[in-house]
Amino acid sequence: MLRFTIITLFREAMEPYLNTSMMWKAQEKGLAQFDFVNLRDFGLGPHKSVDDTPYGGGDGMLLRCEPVFNAIESVKIKDESAKVILPTPVGEVWNQAKAREFSQSDAHYIILCPHYEGYDERILSIVDHKISLGKFVLTGGELPALTIIDSVVRLIPGVLGGENSAIIESFSDGDNLEYPQYTKPYDFRGMKVPDILLSGNHGEIDKWREAHARKAD
Amino acid sequence: MLRFTIITLFREAMEPYLNTSMMWKAQEKGLAQFDFVNLRDFGLGPHKSVDDTPYGGGDGMLLRCEPVFNAIESVKIKDESAKVILPTPVGEVWNQAKAREFSQSDAHYIILCPHYEGYDERILSIVDHKISLGKFVLTGGELPALTIIDSVVRLIPGVLGGENSAIIESFSDGDNLEYPQYTKPYDFRGMKVPDILLSGNHGEIDKWREAHARKAD
Repeated sequence: MLRFTIITLFREAMEPYLNTSMMWKAQEKGLAQFDFVNLRDFGLGPHKSVDDTPYGGGDGMLLRCEPVFNAIESVKIKDESAKVILPTPVGEVWNQAKAREFSQSDAHYIILCPHYEGYDERILSIVDHKISLGKFVLTGGELPALTIIDSVVRLIPGVLGGENSAIIESFSDGDNLEYPQYTKPYDFRGMKVPDILLSGNHGEIDKWREAHARKAD
Repeated sequence: MLRFTIITLFREAMEPYLNTSMMWKAQEKGLAQFDFVNLRDFGLGPHKSVDDTPYGGGDGMLLRCEPVFNAIESVKIKDESAKVILPTPVGEVWNQAKAREFSQSDAHYIILCPHYEGYDERILSIVDHKISLGKFVLTGGELPALTIIDSVVRLIPGVLGGENSAIIESFSDGDNLEYPQYTKPYDFRGMKVPDILLSGNHGEIDKWREAHARKAD
């Protein structure tokens, strides 16, 4: 079973997503397990502080090493094999090939969610996979963490059931091969379904779909 | 005030994120407003169905036009100026320049979250912005929607307060210029902060940071 342990200050913002729809189904079927570690439990001093100001000046607060290392080690002491993922804009860009790679194992991933500002550079020494969602900045690692989990877990055989929509096989070779799709009604406000799709001629339908397949931008 | 109206079947999976941390702060300060429309309310028949099988064959179910158009029009009838965003793998890739563009207005965005399978092609005729997070597939548009919202809302002046961490200015020109950062303690398990950062010489510190700036992969 694939396991994700999420280290965060905002469990309440993340857990409902994992308890809905396909992610919930994956847990119910025993195909994936999601656990949370509250980074605040490893904070320092009476205020359980997890961050501090940067050396050399600059605005913002940085995650400190001690709470992060202690939180990660509290998981690793029970499972030495667990690998640490850090969502960060300087990481490798996430894609479908990586999702597939991560989904094909009984691995245990610890995802550290930095929030809002930066982190002490030395934290990278305990990280196995630095992952970026793209060239944009978010308030924290929570959404990248959920995105990584969702894209991986939906690929576990059994999670999606027998369905195999066009989109599922998109990106399997790194490119998007999705084609236009139509459902009822045939005529919606004057916009009609291409007649070839109603022909019952599967050879011609396949040709039409191939001719209309789109690449991602 | 920037407004987002989210059309989804899974409000319960999304709302907690928007009611936490910075997204909550943005609402409290009256800088952003988030509303939900339940797509199921616009479903057809006794089962309030929103999807059907594809013409021409294939697995999976597709979102139908009627519930989607009706849901969108229920918002547009009150605000004609609202623009429709569809998260889709065939959209333009989201980036910081787009986040900035979307955050610099009093716009109202309607985000349609398709879930899990595909959508009828004719739905694109009511969409203003097709947006992709990257080359990976998710179970639905909920996480892309939250990601778009988060990256836009955090750029509204006042949301982040006076903070201006290094990461905030990353990607402002499309590239990542983040540099390594350190906080206390000076010595963590033998890993020390580079001495230049403790020198107090801001000219030298700036030079060091520039020399160590990283591009995104």
